Amino acid sequence: MPLALSKIEQKLRESPIRRIAQLLAEAKGHRNFISLGAGAPGLPPPKEVVSAMISALEKDPFNSVSYGSSKGSSKLRTLISEDLKSSYNLSYSAEEIAVTTGATGGIFLALEDIVNAGDEVIIPDPTYVGYPGPTIIDRARIRRIPVKREDNYQLTPQEVQKVISKKTAAIILLSPDNPTGRILSKENLKGIAELAIEHDFWLISDEIYKDIIYNGKHIPAAKFAPENTITLCSFSKSAAIPGLRLGYIYGPENAVEGIVKFNQYNSLCPNTLAQIGAEAFYKVKKKYLNYSVRIYKYRMEKMGTCIQKYLPLCNFVKPDGAFYYFVDFSKYLSKLKLNDEQFSHLLLEKKKLAAIPGHFFGKTGGNHLRLTFVTEKTERIEEGIKRIAELCID
Amino acid sequence: MPLALSKIEQKLRESPIRRIAQLLAEAKGHRNFISLGAGAPGLPPPKEVVSAMISALEKDPFNSVSYGSSKGSSKLRTLISEDLKSSYNLSYSAEEIAVTTGATGGIFLALEDIVNAGDEVIIPDPTYVGYPGPTIIDRARIRRIPVKREDNYQLTPQEVQKVISKKTAAIILLSPDNPTGRILSKENLKGIAELAIEHDFWLISDEIYKDIIYNGKHIPAAKFAPENTITLCSFSKSAAIPGLRLGYIYGPENAVEGIVKFNQYNSLCPNTLAQIGAEAFYKVKKKYLNYSVRIYKYRMEKMGTCIQKYLPLCNFVKPDGAFYYFVDFSKYLSKLKLNDEQFSHLLLEKKKLAAIPGHFFGKTGGNHLRLTFVTEKTERIEEGIKRIAELCID
Repeated sequence: MPLALSKIEQKLRESPIRRIAQLLAEAKGHRNFISLGAGAPGLPPPKEVVSAMISALEKDPFNSVSYGSSKGSSKLRTLISEDLKSSYNLSYSAEEIAVTTGATGGIFLALEDIVNAGDEVIIPDPTYVGYPGPTIIDRARIRRIPVKREDNYQLTPQEVQKVISKKTAAIILLSPDNPTGRILSKENLKGIAELAIEHDFWLISDEIYKDIIYNGKHIPAAKFAPENTITLCSFSKSAAIPGLRLGYIYGPENAVEGIVKFNQYNSLCPNTLAQIGAEAFYKVKKKYLNYSVRIYKYRMEKMGTCIQKYLPLCNFVKPDGAFYYFVDFSKYLSKLKLNDEQFSHLLLEKKKLAAIPGHFFGKTGGNHLRLTFVTEKTERIEEGIKRIAELCID
Repeated sequence: MPLALSKIEQKLRESPIRRIAQLLAEAKGHRNFISLGAGAPGLPPPKEVVSAMISALEKDPFNSVSYGSSKGSSKLRTLISEDLKSSYNLSYSAEEIAVTTGATGGIFLALEDIVNAGDEVIIPDPTYVGYPGPTIIDRARIRRIPVKREDNYQLTPQEVQKVISKKTAAIILLSPDNPTGRILSKENLKGIAELAIEHDFWLISDEIYKDIIYNGKHIPAAKFAPENTITLCSFSKSAAIPGLRLGYIYGPENAVEGIVKFNQYNSLCPNTLAQIGAEAFYKVKKKYLNYSVRIYKYRMEKMGTCIQKYLPLCNFVKPDGAFYYFVDFSKYLSKLKLNDEQFSHLLLEKKKLAAIPGHFFGKTGGNHLRLTFVTEKTERIEEGIKRIAELCID
């Protein structure tokens, strides 16, 4: 009999992300495969980011791959500090910023930093699949709050108020949201921030899609409750370097110092070469985002039109940001007598198309699919939606 | 008043590694600074590793920085599997191997995978500073076993037997060891492995210095208790790419799958570009290690001679592997009325020399310094030891 693993290991579900990745890996063998599945940027990173890394490797290989500070390079943290000031008029010094192993590393460390066993963590439903896992690892309880399409997936302070208890340690907010594309309204964000202050809990604000906005404006949570807010950002989506695993957090200095302490035992220090790339990103950030978000927006519009045209019984809200449509297929699926996961498997098998089952994002996501619009070009997006329609309407 | 952080945060000490890094960062401003401090390779990585990354970035920037599997690329895991076979006749399939964020990521995930709150983890004293931290994060108790210079820092099964209890979940072994350079004897390793089997606990075997051997032979712990052993390795020391944060673990498949599950919430996936570099390492591994270990050995011999010549009252064991001398300065420090940390600060301040206080590695390390011999060239090593002697003998 194999030796026992930990209780948390037994409790922890394999990330649906990984199941998605496995499905995708299998599917990529097929010819003419269309991916509306993964949450990865569809464009290459800025040339300047790539050439900064090449140049560093050529000129000084030793220092390009040597250990750095656990908190991240002070040059990069200074650039982030300046960017927060110029983009949002936020005043965070380099000391109040730490570089992390992507936002995945950020959320993991942030929860370790502030959550005790038995605490409660509030998570909207649906939202990103990666929040329950680290909450379980920290032995905390998850309280999910359903958000509805009819309300444009807004989360109101009134709904949050209902689940606050003495055990509430944190709420995790993602805006723009994955999978719904919703930007949390200023009013709701402010109201929730006020609750955090009133009831002494943390606001973990995941803002990795802050630069990927099609409609409206990004408002950092730190505007409303700076002493209660730990913000996660990433270079994965903005700079299109997801495989370099680089993100950052900012917040009150004691919380950031705690996170760095955990990071010393978690990854020792962020990747040095990736940080050289990220430093170069700030030289071209505005130009690159003008270019990439314009293309993503064009693809987003195209997918919306196609869904309306080929799948008229589907319901969805047009996304204000991020990479996805979150589409309600209930009317088709009830006829087909399939749930969203079965449907997604069938799409992969019969139509060589990847889409993510909606219930991965929470119970309310049942009968939905998450469709990524940034990966494929517009003609392939149209072809993809047609393929889905063939399975729905045949 | 700032919002409270977690109880673990309050319990966790800042890693002495970080204090070292801070001291070094300050010291590097000084002219003519000599570093016998950091545990980083002193030579650049193989040209082939660097050019593989450059070439990937030039030819296919998109895929060089895109997301990969949480377990690591199957190409790299296959190369590791073949290397374990050819180097040690160990049979681990690519499925029983996972790529991690350095060995720091590996130890962190391995402990999460197998340790419950209240369990006991056995750690020799002295050994690497990075083990108590993750043990505390997992709410386990630390049981340290002193090992002595007189015994060449060997850990015997008899000593381990004494601290085994029903709560024992794991023992962490590092061979070759940091800071002592000791290679655990085959007899002792086998005896400890038998205890793990008999008492149903895990053997976490940190083998990051397995390729850095000057005298004797590396024996993988997995030889003796494969079902109980999770082995950590790293490209940081062998391939001299510490800042790319890449390592790997191997062990029973269920334990490895558990580790990958935790890794999904910890870093999502290993760095894609770093894996491209590591893949190239296997083409030149033998040649590069012949070159680098020869140079390290030469520096090791030189430092040993210098310590004997300039610091005749110091005691030490000549290292069989790794990067360090662990030197007992008791006879000098008692005269100077300084402890090892005060002495190391004074060396930095007065002599522009970095060396690591021995008590960072455990209680028994008091009055010792860890002196790295791989970083500086031989004439600088001699100059460094002379500077230490000036402070001791003046």
